[in-house]
Amino acid sequence: MPTDFNQLTNQLPGLVELCRTYATEGRVASYIPELAHANPQTLGITLHHKSGSFTSAGESDTPFTLQSISKVFTLLLALMDRGEQAVFEKVGMEPTGDVFNSMLKLELVQPGKPFNPLINAGAIVISSLIGGDTPELKSQRILRFIRDLAGDDSPSFNESVYRSEAATANRNRSLAYFLKDNKVLDQDVEPTLEVYFKQCAIEVTCAHVARMGLILANDGSDPLSGREIVPKRYVRIAKSFMVTCGMYNASGEFAIQVGIPAKSGVAGGILALVPGELGIGIIGPALNDKGNSTAGVQLLKQLSEHYDWSMF
Amino acid sequence: MPTDFNQLTNQLPGLVELCRTYATEGRVASYIPELAHANPQTLGITLHHKSGSFTSAGESDTPFTLQSISKVFTLLLALMDRGEQAVFEKVGMEPTGDVFNSMLKLELVQPGKPFNPLINAGAIVISSLIGGDTPELKSQRILRFIRDLAGDDSPSFNESVYRSEAATANRNRSLAYFLKDNKVLDQDVEPTLEVYFKQCAIEVTCAHVARMGLILANDGSDPLSGREIVPKRYVRIAKSFMVTCGMYNASGEFAIQVGIPAKSGVAGGILALVPGELGIGIIGPALNDKGNSTAGVQLLKQLSEHYDWSMF
Amino acid sequence: MPTDFNQLTNQLPGLVELCRTYATEGRVASYIPELAHANPQTLGITLHHKSGSFTSAGESDTPFTLQSISKVFTLLLALMDRGEQAVFEKVGMEPTGDVFNSMLKLELVQPGKPFNPLINAGAIVISSLIGGDTPELKSQRILRFIRDLAGDDSPSFNESVYRSEAATANRNRSLAYFLKDNKVLDQDVEPTLEVYFKQCAIEVTCAHVARMGLILANDGSDPLSGREIVPKRYVRIAKSFMVTCGMYNASGEFAIQVGIPAKSGVAGGILALVPGELGIGIIGPALNDKGNSTAGVQLLKQLSEHYDWSMF
Amino acid sequence: MPTDFNQLTNQLPGLVELCRTYATEGRVASYIPELAHANPQTLGITLHHKSGSFTSAGESDTPFTLQSISKVFTLLLALMDRGEQAVFEKVGMEPTGDVFNSMLKLELVQPGKPFNPLINAGAIVISSLIGGDTPELKSQRILRFIRDLAGDDSPSFNESVYRSEAATANRNRSLAYFLKDNKVLDQDVEPTLEVYFKQCAIEVTCAHVARMGLILANDGSDPLSGREIVPKRYVRIAKSFMVTCGMYNASGEFAIQVGIPAKSGVAGGILALVPGELGIGIIGPALNDKGNSTAGVQLLKQLSEHYDWSMF
Repeated sequence: MPTDFNQLTNQLPGLVELCRTYATEGRVASYIPELAHANPQTLGITLHHKSGSFTSAGESDTPFTLQSISKVFTLLLALMDRGEQAVFEKVGMEPTGDVFNSMLKLELVQPGKPFNPLINAGAIVISSLIGGDTPELKSQRILRFIRDLAGDDSPSFNESVYRSEAATANRNRSLAYFLKDNKVLDQDVEPTLEVYFKQCAIEVTCAHVARMGLILANDGSDPLSGREIVPKRYVRIAKSFMVTCGMYNASGEFAIQVGIPAKSGVAGGILALVPGELGIGIIGPALNDKGNSTAGVQLLKQLSEHYDWSMF
Repeated sequence: MPTDFNQLTNQLPGLVELCRTYATEGRVASYIPELAHANPQTLGITLHHKSGSFTSAGESDTPFTLQSISKVFTLLLALMDRGEQAVFEKVGMEPTGDVFNSMLKLELVQPGKPFNPLINAGAIVISSLIGGDTPELKSQRILRFIRDLAGDDSPSFNESVYRSEAATANRNRSLAYFLKDNKVLDQDVEPTLEVYFKQCAIEVTCAHVARMGLILANDGSDPLSGREIVPKRYVRIAKSFMVTCGMYNASGEFAIQVGIPAKSGVAGGILALVPGELGIGIIGPALNDKGNSTAGVQLLKQLSEHYDWSMF
Repeated sequence: MPTDFNQLTNQLPGLVELCRTYATEGRVASYIPELAHANPQTLGITLHHKSGSFTSAGESDTPFTLQSISKVFTLLLALMDRGEQAVFEKVGMEPTGDVFNSMLKLELVQPGKPFNPLINAGAIVISSLIGGDTPELKSQRILRFIRDLAGDDSPSFNESVYRSEAATANRNRSLAYFLKDNKVLDQDVEPTLEVYFKQCAIEVTCAHVARMGLILANDGSDPLSGREIVPKRYVRIAKSFMVTCGMYNASGEFAIQVGIPAKSGVAGGILALVPGELGIGIIGPALNDKGNSTAGVQLLKQLSEHYDWSMF
Repeated sequence: MPTDFNQLTNQLPGLVELCRTYATEGRVASYIPELAHANPQTLGITLHHKSGSFTSAGESDTPFTLQSISKVFTLLLALMDRGEQAVFEKVGMEPTGDVFNSMLKLELVQPGKPFNPLINAGAIVISSLIGGDTPELKSQRILRFIRDLAGDDSPSFNESVYRSEAATANRNRSLAYFLKDNKVLDQDVEPTLEVYFKQCAIEVTCAHVARMGLILANDGSDPLSGREIVPKRYVRIAKSFMVTCGMYNASGEFAIQVGIPAKSGVAGGILALVPGELGIGIIGPALNDKGNSTAGVQLLKQLSEHYDWSMF
């Protein structure tokens, strides 16, 4: 039964305040210095309905960087640029219960092909597949794609987050050189990482992410204009990965407790969607030990239970 | 849009013959001696619609043992016997891209808790949680539950498969003693393995599995009588696991290519379902290198594409 | 320059009291219940010179079970029973820095062959290679070999330690079934483990171990009678393993700090030897976090420094 | 009994020709392009006796780069520059049976400290500990140390091998960034790798390596002049590591079959020594699957057996 959007709009502020209390159980990411400045008490959400209505609550205007949420969209762009076969020659399709930056899986599984495009190793390879002759061109194409999906030109690179990330990302450099050594990464490491770090540093608000989720919820097309932005087949692929591995090594639990496609980032953002109905953007910088927004996951759980959103 | 069951009934025999050609790409499981006798060219399917209609094609009457398909149902029974909290204290919720009987994950992730209930280690722990004072009582309760879901009393233990499995299952013994050492398995190893091997050796046909799938597709209730056999919440949990880890380390690819909850077994059986509509049982003993029926997966892929079954 | 045995005899009681203070840094092994009763303050040593002289200090009469020290002698017996080629078809020659009961290495290195005969997995395989038609015969042959090397018939199986070990050794059972599954272990698991647990439960004193070490220090022959008990080639193999992997994952550090062949056991015993000169037996049940006697290692370090025993 | 140097001198040419036939079982290293040009049939050896006599046979004048042999000497220099405690805070002392460039061990063992100074990860950390404010100064100090030990100023950096190595060493870059991420490597990655690659590219002949080995065989002093070049304690440490992990993951087997301290490099060089007697330098570019010179190992095995060199 479709979600009653009016009821939801009325309930939302109360739910946000209820779930905000869960923020105290989490901690703001500190491994990227710039992210450590975020206020852990922040909680904001925007829901965008395919009718064009949208509603927000909490600090939904707080800007945040996409971080790993960007992996969903670079996957889509790489699929549009290279096609399905070329992408999956380089990256696998399987979820993995490992922590997000483990190198174990790369070493154990010949020949060093990343398990899927939503883990760091996979997303680095995906960055190398984005069309464009230079890192700048690739990054600009990613930004244009994000702006197109967000329906707004304000998303931009947060330069200080980018520089902070680039300066401290030795684990990602290690992964990238490992992939290079295994010939899974064809391009040079530093230009590829520049693209990767830049995509992570695109700054948005909940409204942008909700609109991006709505396009995915509507199989790749703008529900108002009907314009296709992403082919339906690629959206299906993205939604599958969001369900099986979108929430790091809590994806299985999230599938059971919430049951909708979602992708989180270490800045505390969550992209989620109710297929055919809604796009959702959330910001809540306090993270649990799996790297997901504590208050944000709680908010999605309560909404999913109340409105029976689970696909399962 | 709902599946046109008449059209499906007409197309099914042709599709089965088309997909049967894929059987030559696979091989019958040989690690359990009794399974090696199966005919690799066999392909059979039954679909059971919630209206009560059902249709079959190919060698759908060929009996086969449930093998890993049973893991879905022992999970459900353990949830009904012990509740959600007790079950997930012992078994995790996360998919893993590892091969099915790896011990690596158990060793790496403290404290040796299996990643999920559909890998061997997890299913062995689940077997220990089934209610009943003796292995015989536990096994009888599992069989009764299978018969109840199948709507038929003919499913029985195939004693020669059971003995064949029990005699050759040193990897599973190794896993079980490892779990025992880590205190994840509370009960004795051999009685627990007896229950585990027996559930794997329950012999069924496609019609049984299709009926079992239909109950899950209908959220745990018989669509004709309305009788609840399994609580909806537990069915949701089972369907989540089927999507994220039902097809061994090809689950991610299956989610993209087929997109419905399914669970395979090494005898070549597949349980699948279209939520709210259909239960599906398939037998095709020739397996691909991931352990799934080659022809069976192909058949589900063609049906899903044609009738747009994907949840994603 | 040869060790001055008179000086050593005079200094020994003082050194033992000095090193006994290190016992407080360790803990008595508790995973085998029977071992937990040992007094952590115990420290005893016997040195046996090739001239026939011997000297003891501390509680050198405290009986203790060989535990992993037995692995040196079952290796020798297996080499005498089967020859070098047959033994090293089943067990490797390489040290490993892993903790003693890890299964990781077995899984990673195809085809599941244990790295060396002094880790548990390797010693279990070695137990299966000991000549004798039944576990009882194998165990009796091991005991006779130990008595022959000790020059005394009092070493016997400690039945309560054996039963305690057999009842709690699920990790070893897990290893053994894994080896069986990989066809590295040809014989049945439980009879093989019976032999393995029995060899670990042979009870000795420092004097026995010192005499056994003296035979190895003298290349396999009794220095007084000249009788060859073990061929020199096999003693060389055993001494190599004692240097590269005799002290669990502190073998490298021990080679640097002490520099003589040695093997420790979790009951707190240490077998050591100064090639061409001395056999050494030590008991000190308080273990460090690597599983070696804290006071015992300290005693060997002080003796080696003072008498310049290091081979390096 | 001391080696009869005259007899050895007479036998050496014949032994070299005998062992040269083993070269056909190996292959020249190809992962560094410059190394692939070597002639696989080359076999040369120089032995340097503490009396000052030396003897050579085969193509002992063929220049080759030290590669991993340099790890022994940078360890010594780091110990002399920083002291034992500072070095072993950053690098462990334990052998590992893993292949030489595995990242698995770094990930599994907290906190990413390399197992020992002779594996790549350990040697990279050691490079960072060499005294000197710039990579150039560090490299010049290493070269001076090598020349001092070789008793000759002709060893120099082979620039084309250095550049070839630096251009293709993505696995080492990956290791170094991993170490940096774990804060085991304090200095910047590229300057550290410059030092590491340069030390590997120092070009020598068998006579140089034999003289270097002789200094180690003589506990760090020139046997003719009596001048101490390296403190005895540090030589002991180096010899321990050469025995437990000098021949990659064939070190255990080499200890049994040959039984003397040795270190190999992928250019086909071997440094070996008979304590108190001889230094040995060997070149034989055809490598076995463990990365050691096939003909070179065979030559040492024959010499050790004939002259009873084994320490065990």
